[in-house]
Amino acid sequence: MPKPLRIGLIGYGFMGRTHSNAYRQVNQFFDLEYRPELKAVCARDAEKVKAFASQWGYESVETDWRKLVERQDIDAVDICTPNNLHKEIALAAAANGKMILCEKPLSMNTAEGEEMCQAVEKAGVPNTVWYNYRRVPAVTLAKQIIDTGKLGRIFHYRANFLQDWTISADLPQGGTALWRLDAAAAGSGVTGDLLAHCIDTAIWLNGSITNVTAMTETFIKERKHNLTGKVEKVGIDDACAFLCHFANGSLGLFESTRYARGHKALYTLEINGENASIKWDLHDLHRLQWFDHKDEGIVRGWRSVHVTDGDQPYMKQWWVPGLQIGYEHTFIHQVADFLQALAANKPCPPTFRDALETQKICDAVLKSAANHQWTNV
Amino acid sequence: MPKPLRIGLIGYGFMGRTHSNAYRQVNQFFDLEYRPELKAVCARDAEKVKAFASQWGYESVETDWRKLVERQDIDAVDICTPNNLHKEIALAAAANGKMILCEKPLSMNTAEGEEMCQAVEKAGVPNTVWYNYRRVPAVTLAKQIIDTGKLGRIFHYRANFLQDWTISADLPQGGTALWRLDAAAAGSGVTGDLLAHCIDTAIWLNGSITNVTAMTETFIKERKHNLTGKVEKVGIDDACAFLCHFANGSLGLFESTRYARGHKALYTLEINGENASIKWDLHDLHRLQWFDHKDEGIVRGWRSVHVTDGDQPYMKQWWVPGLQIGYEHTFIHQVADFLQALAANKPCPPTFRDALETQKICDAVLKSAANHQWTNV
Amino acid sequence: MPKPLRIGLIGYGFMGRTHSNAYRQVNQFFDLEYRPELKAVCARDAEKVKAFASQWGYESVETDWRKLVERQDIDAVDICTPNNLHKEIALAAAANGKMILCEKPLSMNTAEGEEMCQAVEKAGVPNTVWYNYRRVPAVTLAKQIIDTGKLGRIFHYRANFLQDWTISADLPQGGTALWRLDAAAAGSGVTGDLLAHCIDTAIWLNGSITNVTAMTETFIKERKHNLTGKVEKVGIDDACAFLCHFANGSLGLFESTRYARGHKALYTLEINGENASIKWDLHDLHRLQWFDHKDEGIVRGWRSVHVTDGDQPYMKQWWVPGLQIGYEHTFIHQVADFLQALAANKPCPPTFRDALETQKICDAVLKSAANHQWTNV
Amino acid sequence: MPKPLRIGLIGYGFMGRTHSNAYRQVNQFFDLEYRPELKAVCARDAEKVKAFASQWGYESVETDWRKLVERQDIDAVDICTPNNLHKEIALAAAANGKMILCEKPLSMNTAEGEEMCQAVEKAGVPNTVWYNYRRVPAVTLAKQIIDTGKLGRIFHYRANFLQDWTISADLPQGGTALWRLDAAAAGSGVTGDLLAHCIDTAIWLNGSITNVTAMTETFIKERKHNLTGKVEKVGIDDACAFLCHFANGSLGLFESTRYARGHKALYTLEINGENASIKWDLHDLHRLQWFDHKDEGIVRGWRSVHVTDGDQPYMKQWWVPGLQIGYEHTFIHQVADFLQALAANKPCPPTFRDALETQKICDAVLKSAANHQWTNV
Repeated sequence: MPKPLRIGLIGYGFMGRTHSNAYRQVNQFFDLEYRPELKAVCARDAEKVKAFASQWGYESVETDWRKLVERQDIDAVDICTPNNLHKEIALAAAANGKMILCEKPLSMNTAEGEEMCQAVEKAGVPNTVWYNYRRVPAVTLAKQIIDTGKLGRIFHYRANFLQDWTISADLPQGGTALWRLDAAAAGSGVTGDLLAHCIDTAIWLNGSITNVTAMTETFIKERKHNLTGKVEKVGIDDACAFLCHFANGSLGLFESTRYARGHKALYTLEINGENASIKWDLHDLHRLQWFDHKDEGIVRGWRSVHVTDGDQPYMKQWWVPGLQIGYEHTFIHQVADFLQALAANKPCPPTFRDALETQKICDAVLKSAANHQWTNV
Repeated sequence: MPKPLRIGLIGYGFMGRTHSNAYRQVNQFFDLEYRPELKAVCARDAEKVKAFASQWGYESVETDWRKLVERQDIDAVDICTPNNLHKEIALAAAANGKMILCEKPLSMNTAEGEEMCQAVEKAGVPNTVWYNYRRVPAVTLAKQIIDTGKLGRIFHYRANFLQDWTISADLPQGGTALWRLDAAAAGSGVTGDLLAHCIDTAIWLNGSITNVTAMTETFIKERKHNLTGKVEKVGIDDACAFLCHFANGSLGLFESTRYARGHKALYTLEINGENASIKWDLHDLHRLQWFDHKDEGIVRGWRSVHVTDGDQPYMKQWWVPGLQIGYEHTFIHQVADFLQALAANKPCPPTFRDALETQKICDAVLKSAANHQWTNV
Repeated sequence: MPKPLRIGLIGYGFMGRTHSNAYRQVNQFFDLEYRPELKAVCARDAEKVKAFASQWGYESVETDWRKLVERQDIDAVDICTPNNLHKEIALAAAANGKMILCEKPLSMNTAEGEEMCQAVEKAGVPNTVWYNYRRVPAVTLAKQIIDTGKLGRIFHYRANFLQDWTISADLPQGGTALWRLDAAAAGSGVTGDLLAHCIDTAIWLNGSITNVTAMTETFIKERKHNLTGKVEKVGIDDACAFLCHFANGSLGLFESTRYARGHKALYTLEINGENASIKWDLHDLHRLQWFDHKDEGIVRGWRSVHVTDGDQPYMKQWWVPGLQIGYEHTFIHQVADFLQALAANKPCPPTFRDALETQKICDAVLKSAANHQWTNV
Repeated sequence: MPKPLRIGLIGYGFMGRTHSNAYRQVNQFFDLEYRPELKAVCARDAEKVKAFASQWGYESVETDWRKLVERQDIDAVDICTPNNLHKEIALAAAANGKMILCEKPLSMNTAEGEEMCQAVEKAGVPNTVWYNYRRVPAVTLAKQIIDTGKLGRIFHYRANFLQDWTISADLPQGGTALWRLDAAAAGSGVTGDLLAHCIDTAIWLNGSITNVTAMTETFIKERKHNLTGKVEKVGIDDACAFLCHFANGSLGLFESTRYARGHKALYTLEINGENASIKWDLHDLHRLQWFDHKDEGIVRGWRSVHVTDGDQPYMKQWWVPGLQIGYEHTFIHQVADFLQALAANKPCPPTFRDALETQKICDAVLKSAANHQWTNV
């Protein structure tokens, strides 16, 4: 019988749902030494948090996160709050010896992130950041292939994350559902929300980034603020793009926006090596595009690999070849990996320290965009 | 609080997993008056059935399905056995006043199916058949669009279901995992296993089929039988194709095979109307292809609709636009619909009677293939 | 310097344009022993034929095809008339010792075709039929691959040719532009016009067809006739589908229609072998889809081969990799092959005799559709 | 009868072929007041230029371009030489009152280009630059749509041009076929060769670019030089990417490389507006991707428009719906437009002056890449 791992969740928004679902499902599909127990969920609105607890099966609720992180019956704290609370909660949780699973981005900035790293490292608690797209089977497969060295020397890496949900000027900023548009809560706009995903995957697949030149734009300059009721200046970046150099000598190109009409959540990545190339996109996340120059010339072409076979990452836990899984499974995979790492007494990447690297790049990007100069990471 | 609906599951194979998962998840995502309780699971192998019960949270096990269908603490029997047991179990379950959720195809043939229909109708018990592909959001959306009449007069319907997993002559037939290759257990090969899906969707979307001309083939004539250990004649159809007329005057073309190298589970359908056309395929199940002749000429083209928005069928229960769901969700949707129908005291299609229509067409197809003649349904 | 091959073209419709263009261009791109000379073009309307001759560079015109086929300064007669004139012209041309390039389908029926074959064979004149899709580079590449035996045992062949240009009931039949809708001129509808293409390619790629079961439909029963001015019964098939067996044991599925809303000229074909599969479609004719089961499992998938490289059929004559050619080039390739065959004193397939095989299958298909029975070819 | 326009072609490489073909074909497909006469072709190698003349039907040859531009029987000079000769030839041709059709890029740099503009403007001779991708029907269609204002406010423009043909370190630089790798002949690498195309289309579709930040890379630092026989430093940029601002407030992202394994000539562009978006790529050049937010929500999606209908740009001159044209047709279209402009006494864009704008941007890009700073155009 698996041992219980008692979870305390803080925040019950979109990510609260995906994490709760992952905890509930993981043991049905993975053979693990631990089983998450949904011990408590915390949010300020008592009524709503009770409803959430009832819906997802949490045993208890809290309305003050400080109480939750101090509870003796909690092993791991899952931080799903807006970004501006990550640091404070993480520091308190670490101080209380809790393991921490923190939503991405790690922090509002590098300085905060560094504090968080030091806190978990000092406390010696297992920690991970929910950069869930690493665990899309097709992306994990990309990592496996890259690690074989088959691609040869890498020349190019490009990624973008295109959305279109904030085009309307009538959309307000701030508050429960829209804190991502509020700079005070989110820290940045698409840079921390979307590009951070692209960067995390990129450095995992292609190594570190050394310097960047970036531009950002805020297309809608003012929006009504849900917390104040007034029209206020928009502080976030609506779009961000940057060029960069990777330490391995390859060139990088990144772009993100919430103003790309027609794209709901189009995260795409491509890596071009001397011998082979890989492409992937989130809108058809179960497919990997693979080009191998060693294929016979007359029938050489991009292969569309339907990543649903038992010998492909994570897939033997699911259904049968041809039957795709979806978005939520990436979180289940991360929980499975976290629990396996725990059993093996190993870190579950990306750790806080790994995620800090993404934070540094985001900071360099925003700095470059602000001062219009190439900036070292 | 939702009322419990106590489930007794018979069979724990691939479908046993998908159904169990659906029962476990449905109330997290749908607001319902009932909540499935996993009361008992039944299979002949006591050890394996216990492991399954433990994995999925069933409270108890049985090794004799007759005991299960007689238990007073069971409200609904879910039949996931090989096809040759459907009838006997269904009759017993109905006699005991149980609701029945039966895996597809309904039965070995029309005669058995008719008995089953009469049994559930006489007993007055809610019943449904797991033709899960009706509940792929893109397919449900197709149904909604067709029901508006936007397509105008229908000219063509075509569907195929292509797999490649039985090409190797070394694959044996029969037994736990491979009963689908054993005519005694399955009744037919691809006709009942795959074409039945195509037919169920087709008659739902395009109305009844009046007559057919068909051909079947068994490419590998003999395979080792897992139950006897001997090489035996293969009794199933490896491939089946048929032409047909629909009652609405449109022409139909159907094909299924397990020998289409390169296709894992490629169920595709297309319907061509006077004004518009629709296409869908299971390998990218979250997309619907839509062509509307009323679009302005110079920018007219097939639209690739990413069915992940809240106003599209079932999707407001899941994540956010752009984030796809997968195969298993079709079963969750069917449970949700079953529970809603139960609360509303309405049938949940396809009922046994609905599914009997598919059985009749399968029988006509197999008869036509055997005697090489056009055959009325 | 290439020797002249003096061409006499009969008919100046759509095909007259494609052939004339091919004659004019072929020597720019292929190094050949012969060079077509556009000697004469013939049609009944003197004014229009003069304009065509002027446009395309024909030296002279005729208004009576009998005169053209008797001219001493003509080496080869190109028949681009409606189908009902093919036989008479071919017989006269052969009797005059002319080479013949005949538009497809060869004839109105097998009996006519047999007469034509005997005429050219008796006269010993080079002859070919313009089944141009054999010379799409991607299709020729498919043939090359299949001929290597890489696919192993063949299980399935399927093809369709879907159009939507006759859906409007207001479209008349008959006359210059619309003789394809007039049974008296065309012989049949989609069977001879579209399926004949599918069949020609199929027997070239997969060998002979032994028997068929077919259905046809005429959706619009009456249309105004351009020649009589009256509303008349439509004699052609608007749609035709058939199942068949190939001599190599594989199963065939064919469909054609002019009522598939959204498809302009979608000729698709697919062949599934034990080890590999191939797909192609005319809407993106420069691509071949290739699936090789011998590829490593985790990166196995359909390859989209962009057939524009110099080592792929015909392509070294054109531009550079990545730059596609189009529809008209298939005719240029056929002229090049015809001229090369002439220089080598070899037949240029498909000859009349090759094309007669397609005619026999079309006849069997129409017969099967009429009497609702499986019919041997 | 069309009037002759006597062409003198200088250079007979890849572009010499595409232009010659365009001159030969244009009057077969377009009804024009002028007809190109292939008067003379010029290149240094007397034997090869004679063979080319014979192949393409040029009446005479020259081996000194100065003679050609002075000939009285030449109306228009077509410059297909390496870039380093454009200016000198153009100045001489203008001085002799010749019309000029110049291959892209216009010049080695802005200064040269400005001289060329002043020369043709002073001489008052018609002039155009062969940025042929403007005349891909799908791209022209994009322009038409954008000009209606349907897209609303523009937020993003992105384009890339990805090739992989120079990855091998064994490929030499310089000489007839490989002058594009020789900085002395080409001026720059991918910037002038590939990005120039992307920029030309971009400013045509989206207006002027105000400032850029760029990076370039030369992956293979030394290659054997075909002219000297020695291994020499590579002076060109193998890859170039830049971010920019358009005058209309939208953000731009451009990338080009010859090291993107798997892409032969993948020129893609995308423009995102408030209400609609457009995408196109050269590998399937006959398709336009169109997204219209005004489409009904549940069936909203990217449309794949098969640009082969008579009401789409240029296509009524060609075949019938569904039948695609290819790369070479873009040159035919440009000749047709040039001849029509000539008849109407209007400029044929892009003129030298239009193309100078692209030159300025290329210069700014290269300058920014060199000094690592944002640079105004």
